[in-house]
Amino acid sequence: MSGVDAINEVIAREAPALWSALSPLGRTCFYPPDIPFQAAQARGKRFNATIGQITDGAGRILPLPAIAEALGRFGDDDLNRALLYSPIDGLPELRERWHAWHRLASQELPPSSLPVVTCGLTHGLALAADLFGGSGRTVVVPAPFWGNYRQIFGIRTGATVLPAPAYDEERRWRPTALADAIAELPAGEPVVAVLNVPSNPGGYSPTVAERRLLVESLIRVADTRPLVVVCDDAYSGLVFEPDIPAGSLFWELIGSHPNLVPIRIAGSTKEFVFFGGRVGFVTFPWASGTPLMDAIENKVRGLIRAGVGSPTALSQITLLQAMRRDDAAEQVRKVVELMAARYRVLRAALDQHADPSLFRVLPFNSGVFAVLELAPGLHANEARLELLESRDVGLVSIGDRYLRVAFCSIDEHAIPELVERTVAGLREIAARTTLTSSAP
Amino acid sequence: MSGVDAINEVIAREAPALWSALSPLGRTCFYPPDIPFQAAQARGKRFNATIGQITDGAGRILPLPAIAEALGRFGDDDLNRALLYSPIDGLPELRERWHAWHRLASQELPPSSLPVVTCGLTHGLALAADLFGGSGRTVVVPAPFWGNYRQIFGIRTGATVLPAPAYDEERRWRPTALADAIAELPAGEPVVAVLNVPSNPGGYSPTVAERRLLVESLIRVADTRPLVVVCDDAYSGLVFEPDIPAGSLFWELIGSHPNLVPIRIAGSTKEFVFFGGRVGFVTFPWASGTPLMDAIENKVRGLIRAGVGSPTALSQITLLQAMRRDDAAEQVRKVVELMAARYRVLRAALDQHADPSLFRVLPFNSGVFAVLELAPGLHANEARLELLESRDVGLVSIGDRYLRVAFCSIDEHAIPELVERTVAGLREIAARTTLTSSAP
Repeated sequence: MSGVDAINEVIAREAPALWSALSPLGRTCFYPPDIPFQAAQARGKRFNATIGQITDGAGRILPLPAIAEALGRFGDDDLNRALLYSPIDGLPELRERWHAWHRLASQELPPSSLPVVTCGLTHGLALAADLFGGSGRTVVVPAPFWGNYRQIFGIRTGATVLPAPAYDEERRWRPTALADAIAELPAGEPVVAVLNVPSNPGGYSPTVAERRLLVESLIRVADTRPLVVVCDDAYSGLVFEPDIPAGSLFWELIGSHPNLVPIRIAGSTKEFVFFGGRVGFVTFPWASGTPLMDAIENKVRGLIRAGVGSPTALSQITLLQAMRRDDAAEQVRKVVELMAARYRVLRAALDQHADPSLFRVLPFNSGVFAVLELAPGLHANEARLELLESRDVGLVSIGDRYLRVAFCSIDEHAIPELVERTVAGLREIAARTTLTSSAP
Repeated sequence: MSGVDAINEVIAREAPALWSALSPLGRTCFYPPDIPFQAAQARGKRFNATIGQITDGAGRILPLPAIAEALGRFGDDDLNRALLYSPIDGLPELRERWHAWHRLASQELPPSSLPVVTCGLTHGLALAADLFGGSGRTVVVPAPFWGNYRQIFGIRTGATVLPAPAYDEERRWRPTALADAIAELPAGEPVVAVLNVPSNPGGYSPTVAERRLLVESLIRVADTRPLVVVCDDAYSGLVFEPDIPAGSLFWELIGSHPNLVPIRIAGSTKEFVFFGGRVGFVTFPWASGTPLMDAIENKVRGLIRAGVGSPTALSQITLLQAMRRDDAAEQVRKVVELMAARYRVLRAALDQHADPSLFRVLPFNSGVFAVLELAPGLHANEARLELLESRDVGLVSIGDRYLRVAFCSIDEHAIPELVERTVAGLREIAARTTLTSSAP
């Protein structure tokens, strides 16, 4: 039995729902016993001539002085680790620290794997797409959604991206949006659902009651088919209302149904304000060290090696230096507070300037965005371009009807003026449109 | 006409060979006009609320103090750029500097694109695989080869990897290896060839005469079919014999035939001893700013965004800080000299211990590796494990017959002992094997 057959057998036996949801690539990929594998076996040997890195012969990098100087505060050991290849699944210390960091608040959590490190959060989503996407597979995404989901799952793997309306006609968030959309699909067919909480672009996190309805609806889906839930936790922890739970739904979904496979995709991007570092993490709902997780990690390592070689060691060391500090949690908390202050100012400004003839604000309470749903007659991309040109305001248009406001990149004191300019601009467009459309 | 149709039309018209060689994914992918596209349009606006980065409202990062301190020598501007998202195709200053760095020696070179920055060299190969691989496509690779090619092109995209024997029976390097293998394929069918010079694992770079034969043979292939030549320049510049050309074959292949599309994949990994940084570059054989290169870059940006989000800004800034220095070239030259010294010691030790009853050394003159072809009766992986256990020596096995020695990771003074231990270990295995096989 070849290596890939052996790991496939473990997965099919131990996690039949996962197995039935694997894409053709997910079934064929594996981590080959070639150079990194053999190099790991040779670690600590007196003569280690396995891997093409330029070292002193004792496993330590021979750094270019120019690079070492740029990273002058790293210290010798960390500099060494930052310039050598990272293990394919990430630096063990970082994997342990991220694991502890995110499970800290809830000792009672069910088992989960050590996170595998990726080249940013999107890379984690792309790995999930490789494992579970592919032609013939449906990926359900609450709409409006981050457009890159279409590229990641649809264009790259050939899966069908099915939008599930996230809000009802009264602009209330729909906890059963995913389950309702999935109910339309052929019975028994495995399906992938993306759960993005807090949402991009919506900036919404469910209440306790809504979370319960959501989880129950997904468990009912799992009664009828294998269901992979990709928890995109990009904005995890950025929650600004005291009665809204801030924890990832991933933890609630683990072990909830044998047919339900939650996968957590997270990153240091927002939490550690480390956008340029590209450090993401993929966590599976089983304990590491089991034959099942060994088999799954084998596949993930194979995909990482074939796609990017290994995750960025330099960024991992930089993040580690931050996470090792006693005041790391306090520093992260301050970022959340800063975002909360901007959130409150934006809420107040939008309330003050509410004008349903121009737009409605979709409910928001978390994350770094708010979404305006434009009134009929206003077109989102045209409005965006006009606001750019005439008001010096940059927003993002999503589809024909939505404008997304990224309040994370606007200073608190500038937010009221941003809203005033946006509303004034929309009013001008609406007036002109009415004028034009009522002209003979 | 939708965005992707428009760019496909340009490519089909301006570069029919490239078009006919594109994979199904290569034909459907494009860079969507969503968030990064719209954020680029909003750059410099008084209120830029387009992108979900945590900034001061004037486009500058609000760094976590812990991260900023770890990167203490960066200076404000570079720190800012290191922590914000990189442009999808890389920081313009780095693209310009890499372009100039590699074209410096040859002002007379034909036009080439600005390089697109990737998350390491393997990511560049994976982008080429996405563009030109896929089910039904053959990718020809000189053998023995780096095993990851099979994962990158075969497992990930479904292409067929066809090994082309790189050495003849006298262990001479075969300049027509790729062309000979391609001649067996159905006429007219587009094909991808990987050209890895200096080679991994072989450590070989062709002579002037061999280069001419190689280029001529590829041009003859292009008379019969579209031919994409992926120039894997991972070890570019690491050439240790005065009569061996050190420049990439990419420059010679540009414009050599309308059916021949060379693509250069390079990285800062070896040249700048920056293994953990993951900064790679993809260069196309047409000038940037043309409709054709705009169309191609559009596709590449789409794939980068969907696969990893954006390349690592922190690593790009670190590399930039090195490249900006007046002594950068001198520092890189010293690394080449160090490798050359190890190369000479290894050559001498292998010459001294040559024993054709145990192994032959494949010709090598460059790169960071040498390959031993084991005599019949010795099995590469078994020999590897035995050398690990009984001699404290770590080598890499490739297929059944080859052992790869990475002299880049062994100190010059330890190399003779490495060779002695390896030869002694192989001799012991051979003696035991003969003993066993002659036992009743």
